[in-house]
Amino acid sequence: MFMNEIILKKKNKLELTKEEINFVIEGYTKGSIPDYQVSSLLMAIVLNGLNDDETTALTMSMMNSGQVIDLKAIKGIKSDKHSTGGVGDKTSLVLGPMVASCGVKVAKMSGRGLGHTGGTLDKLEAIPGFKIERSKKDFIEQVNKIGFSIIGQSGDLVPADKKLYALRDVTGTVQSIPLIASSIMSKKLATGADTILLDVKYGSGAFYSDPKDAIKLAKTMVAIGTKMKRNTKAIITSMDQPLGQAIGNSLEIIETINTLSGKGPKDLVELCLKAGVIILKQAKIAISDQEARKMLIKNIENGSALNVFKQMVKAQEGDESYISEPKKFGIAKHVVAVKLKKAGYIESIDTLKLGLAAMHLGAGRAKKEDKIDPAAGIMIYKKVGDLIKPSDVVLYIHTNLSNYDAIITDLISAFKVSTKPVIAQPLIYSIIE
Amino acid sequence: MFMNEIILKKKNKLELTKEEINFVIEGYTKGSIPDYQVSSLLMAIVLNGLNDDETTALTMSMMNSGQVIDLKAIKGIKSDKHSTGGVGDKTSLVLGPMVASCGVKVAKMSGRGLGHTGGTLDKLEAIPGFKIERSKKDFIEQVNKIGFSIIGQSGDLVPADKKLYALRDVTGTVQSIPLIASSIMSKKLATGADTILLDVKYGSGAFYSDPKDAIKLAKTMVAIGTKMKRNTKAIITSMDQPLGQAIGNSLEIIETINTLSGKGPKDLVELCLKAGVIILKQAKIAISDQEARKMLIKNIENGSALNVFKQMVKAQEGDESYISEPKKFGIAKHVVAVKLKKAGYIESIDTLKLGLAAMHLGAGRAKKEDKIDPAAGIMIYKKVGDLIKPSDVVLYIHTNLSNYDAIITDLISAFKVSTKPVIAQPLIYSIIE
Repeated sequence: MFMNEIILKKKNKLELTKEEINFVIEGYTKGSIPDYQVSSLLMAIVLNGLNDDETTALTMSMMNSGQVIDLKAIKGIKSDKHSTGGVGDKTSLVLGPMVASCGVKVAKMSGRGLGHTGGTLDKLEAIPGFKIERSKKDFIEQVNKIGFSIIGQSGDLVPADKKLYALRDVTGTVQSIPLIASSIMSKKLATGADTILLDVKYGSGAFYSDPKDAIKLAKTMVAIGTKMKRNTKAIITSMDQPLGQAIGNSLEIIETINTLSGKGPKDLVELCLKAGVIILKQAKIAISDQEARKMLIKNIENGSALNVFKQMVKAQEGDESYISEPKKFGIAKHVVAVKLKKAGYIESIDTLKLGLAAMHLGAGRAKKEDKIDPAAGIMIYKKVGDLIKPSDVVLYIHTNLSNYDAIITDLISAFKVSTKPVIAQPLIYSIIE
Repeated sequence: MFMNEIILKKKNKLELTKEEINFVIEGYTKGSIPDYQVSSLLMAIVLNGLNDDETTALTMSMMNSGQVIDLKAIKGIKSDKHSTGGVGDKTSLVLGPMVASCGVKVAKMSGRGLGHTGGTLDKLEAIPGFKIERSKKDFIEQVNKIGFSIIGQSGDLVPADKKLYALRDVTGTVQSIPLIASSIMSKKLATGADTILLDVKYGSGAFYSDPKDAIKLAKTMVAIGTKMKRNTKAIITSMDQPLGQAIGNSLEIIETINTLSGKGPKDLVELCLKAGVIILKQAKIAISDQEARKMLIKNIENGSALNVFKQMVKAQEGDESYISEPKKFGIAKHVVAVKLKKAGYIESIDTLKLGLAAMHLGAGRAKKEDKIDPAAGIMIYKKVGDLIKPSDVVLYIHTNLSNYDAIITDLISAFKVSTKPVIAQPLIYSIIE
């Protein structure tokens, strides 16, 4: 097989065979096919596409490029949930304990956040002592006992994706539904869950601004999962404003604790309930939506969901006293109220701007080497559709930096205010089953 | 400027600015932009195209990546002619002396043939002693005195093209009209001629099988030349059968001598006359087609065209006695008659097959390091439309190899014979002015 001929086939819009796709992924992973041939093929894929069979073959080939985790030693149905990422998205942290308290097994492996705000692992590391590295044995034991664990992805998980992603990032080939779908699904499939729920975001804080693109991506991923005999579903949700009120690592952990204690912001609670219902049904723990929803609410009210979270923190060497007393999380040196000094209805929020502002305040990494400040971030109290007065505080910045004026100016510019009433987009746009 | 953003622009079908194109070519030539980013951009160009302004900017940028030759020291109009390459194409060797004998200055720089049969330089090197390396001073002196010289391209001529071509060759990005046009035209423009005539081939022995593609390429190149204020024209000619009768290096030199002596094969003579007429008119040495054609025929009849060729050989240290006595060229050990053993009209000839067969007989290079056998090749005597008997010899192979049976079988398979009369395509399909 010759790489140049495979490139030419895709250039000429022909379908690649499973063998050709394996040849590319194996050769690239072990280094026998150079970057410059792969990037040319990637651009041909971006522009000419891959059909469902090719996308599934690519996903399988990537999945098999490294270790494939066997979770058979965990009893019960193992559910995984993946979000395409957004600003203030702490869903995994809330949802995991909620469904685990109902009997689902959540053995989650997470990657490092490379985006504007920290990823799930960074948020957990805001809890003093928390360890994201576990042996396979400890991981399995913990999930069997508590029902919930989130650990860092092993270095040998889907190495093809690491190489491909780094290349795509610098060759204009990130934005492609089959490439994004295979990247996400190869990792989900390699981590061995029985059921997968995908939360595909759209809007000003997401990768796609148009929900139609998010639906296309979701459908592609659900098709792959289904072909691979995993119960796979997707929800399409709006990221036209931050999820919940907290953006930033310890701020989001505190919001997680509040939500698991029944005091969460409405949008976050609703998303976790809707997603939780789907997961309980996927795991066949509940039959109807009503039944599932009741179980989830009950376990928040009776404290068992929060208890799963606490036990998880303890099992992974975190200081559980922080969960009981969230006040123990340090507060940043500067907590500054930000007002728009305008009256009217909030029409839109440039959510990516909020994410980037949080990063500049210290909550995320601009470069891989950057250190995260767990206390930094934003608390936002006014959302799309809200009527505000000029004196209203729309958000607070939390930071240990002393120079934050430019960030505040930028944050203010993220809001559009209208004199006419505005109705916000529904949080959940659609469900793909 | 960021390479990734330039790639994204082309991916999104946006027009690149002159500055962006310069950034890419300069960066790639000096090594600050890596292969993998350039190959991704090349594939985006192959699939999304470049408009005329972008193609011209790319051509200029490539031209300026190395030395640009100044031919001002040569008096008179300097004409250049370029063929996109074919089987048995010795036009430059015949045409150069013809037009030079009429007063045009032909200072030609040629690249090494990497295709199936040898290039113009390889053919000239079949003449014992002939040198293709000259100092700039000697080159200019020779053209001033004799009117004609063909030398090897300096290593510093359009280095961007060398790097780009090597990359395109292994990344499925060869076939693209703007990339081919800028590759050819950057070299033509860098070698400093006043007028350019392009011979763009189509057919079974050419890069494009469809004349429409050849016309597109020709129009793109003429547009570039015109924008760069060079009188540029193109002829679209058929390569559905070899040009003339000889394929192979010394065989083609002998055919060149014969043609310059008024004993050339009809198709080659006609092409050289048609092309010569255009060149004489471009150089304003003749006004009408009739006048130009007369001058060219006269200079073949009176021996002055052949004399230019002889003087050129002598000036470049070749043994001119070979030109006076072509019998001095050695003949290959085996000269074998090939018959089709069929009766009928020759319907088509797979010309690429003939080129590859000549290469296997020793006339060309399969790899860069291969040595060429000057005596090897093919003499073909039956062409499309000819009526043949089973006993007719259609061609002879000339080779020093002892095992050539498979090559003969392959050669026979290149011919299609019909019971019905066949009319060959005209040699010249159209002229682009």
